[in-house]
Amino acid sequence: MTDNAPQKTSPTPLTLLGLGAMGTTLARTWLAAGHPLTVWNRTPARAEPLVAHGARTAPTAAEAVAANELVVLCLLDDASVEEALADADLTGKDLVDLTTGTPARARARAAWARERGARFLDGGIMAVPPMIGAPESGGYVFYSGSPAAFDAHRQTLTVPAGARYVGEDPGFAALQDVALLSAMTGMFAGLSHAFALVRKEDIDLLEFAPLLAEWLVAMAPAAQTTAGELTSGDYTTGVVSNLAMMVAGNTTLLRTAEEQGVSSELLLPFMDLMERRLKDGHGDESTTGVIELLHR
Amino acid sequence: MTDNAPQKTSPTPLTLLGLGAMGTTLARTWLAAGHPLTVWNRTPARAEPLVAHGARTAPTAAEAVAANELVVLCLLDDASVEEALADADLTGKDLVDLTTGTPARARARAAWARERGARFLDGGIMAVPPMIGAPESGGYVFYSGSPAAFDAHRQTLTVPAGARYVGEDPGFAALQDVALLSAMTGMFAGLSHAFALVRKEDIDLLEFAPLLAEWLVAMAPAAQTTAGELTSGDYTTGVVSNLAMMVAGNTTLLRTAEEQGVSSELLLPFMDLMERRLKDGHGDESTTGVIELLHR
Repeated sequence: MTDNAPQKTSPTPLTLLGLGAMGTTLARTWLAAGHPLTVWNRTPARAEPLVAHGARTAPTAAEAVAANELVVLCLLDDASVEEALADADLTGKDLVDLTTGTPARARARAAWARERGARFLDGGIMAVPPMIGAPESGGYVFYSGSPAAFDAHRQTLTVPAGARYVGEDPGFAALQDVALLSAMTGMFAGLSHAFALVRKEDIDLLEFAPLLAEWLVAMAPAAQTTAGELTSGDYTTGVVSNLAMMVAGNTTLLRTAEEQGVSSELLLPFMDLMERRLKDGHGDESTTGVIELLHR
Repeated sequence: MTDNAPQKTSPTPLTLLGLGAMGTTLARTWLAAGHPLTVWNRTPARAEPLVAHGARTAPTAAEAVAANELVVLCLLDDASVEEALADADLTGKDLVDLTTGTPARARARAAWARERGARFLDGGIMAVPPMIGAPESGGYVFYSGSPAAFDAHRQTLTVPAGARYVGEDPGFAALQDVALLSAMTGMFAGLSHAFALVRKEDIDLLEFAPLLAEWLVAMAPAAQTTAGELTSGDYTTGVVSNLAMMVAGNTTLLRTAEEQGVSSELLLPFMDLMERRLKDGHGDESTTGVIELLHR
């Protein structure tokens, strides 16, 4: 690590396979930062605008891979990775796979890459294209896999977005990526129900929305409380409203939905689990115990 | 309104019916701020500790109501309100009902109170007892109903927590209260799924939780985007990932849950609605259109 030493080396050259919306944006930020970049895309026309910005193209993915030690993949899915790299020589390469997928896919691809003589990093992008190359947006990428490959390319990888290395298990980046997106899905479901409740009333949604956002921000630290309880195994430490009180309160939530003509389908599964935990004798705990009911 | 005039009046005397956890905490903050306070509770013993702090008690709810013009209710449910006020003379009273309930309940109680010669305010408390009397906690109370009653008692009502008046319709405080709690329920469901995914892996939950909280905070402004789209009727303005992309991404979320042995029951209802909207030809929109599917 040379974090304290002045960086006198010129920008690392790299290869990028895949020029969808995300790949194209990544390419632009590396080119803008002066990195020599070789690109390849199954449909070659998508590379043309990047050539005007200094990118080199390669006629095949194998030739693009041959051009540089660092090879970033931003393809549609794992089948596209398999196909693109079928004929490529990966010996001595550092493969950074930003293709969306599951933890098991990342682990399998990591083993596959190691067998072919490459170091492997999987990445989970917590950003949409407009947040790439815009550090103030807070977008970042989870990385997991070879720590040596991460250390070697940290600087280059940090050009498009912040980089968070979350462990040697190559599945951990995808897992934490999916965990955050899953939590967001729940939050969006809750937001949808909330708006359905109020939108047909004479309520200014543009005045209501900041209160809703502020409330969710105020409740977000529940993540830390929950983590503390799961770690200690004591689900009563973070209790402000216990399960018994919350289940009682759910009645008001359901009746209100009924009054407003709104389906409760987005809230019911969680309420059902809360009720199951309550019936199992955990009324004095927080909702953390519900998590135990989710394991098959 | 005398917002600019110096307040030389002494603290307004008031009556509080109901000394559960919340009522007791409210009583303490009003007593601490020097408000003469008359309390009543169905089980009189709960009033004793407050008497030591200067509260007066009344043998019946009707006598407690008679003691002051401003009467605050913090009872178990609407049946308790009905019962407590059955014999009370409400003429000339300002009734502030903090009892939890639905918008329809608040509207009915408001009509009932007006018929008896009282002004009525309904309140929805966005705080748990530890946040009462602690302005830095950010807790507050939604109020709706008589604007004159709110203006007359704003100062007194602001003693335990911030006060947000949201309209003359007495149902609006309960409605916005329930909307926020419903959104929180969705967020907690999402958090539970996220923790279920990662907790059996060698991942430090105390390091993961702040990333999760930070992500939810970063996504909370989606409330404003959604409000803007609902107001304009154009569901494509706030699109960063459109519905088609999100539905494709859901596959990875579901497969990961499967790999990790986690039930997807908390995510499926929202994903099903997203898919319905996509099939209805709204793939280029945000998820806002899902809200339309919730109305019965």
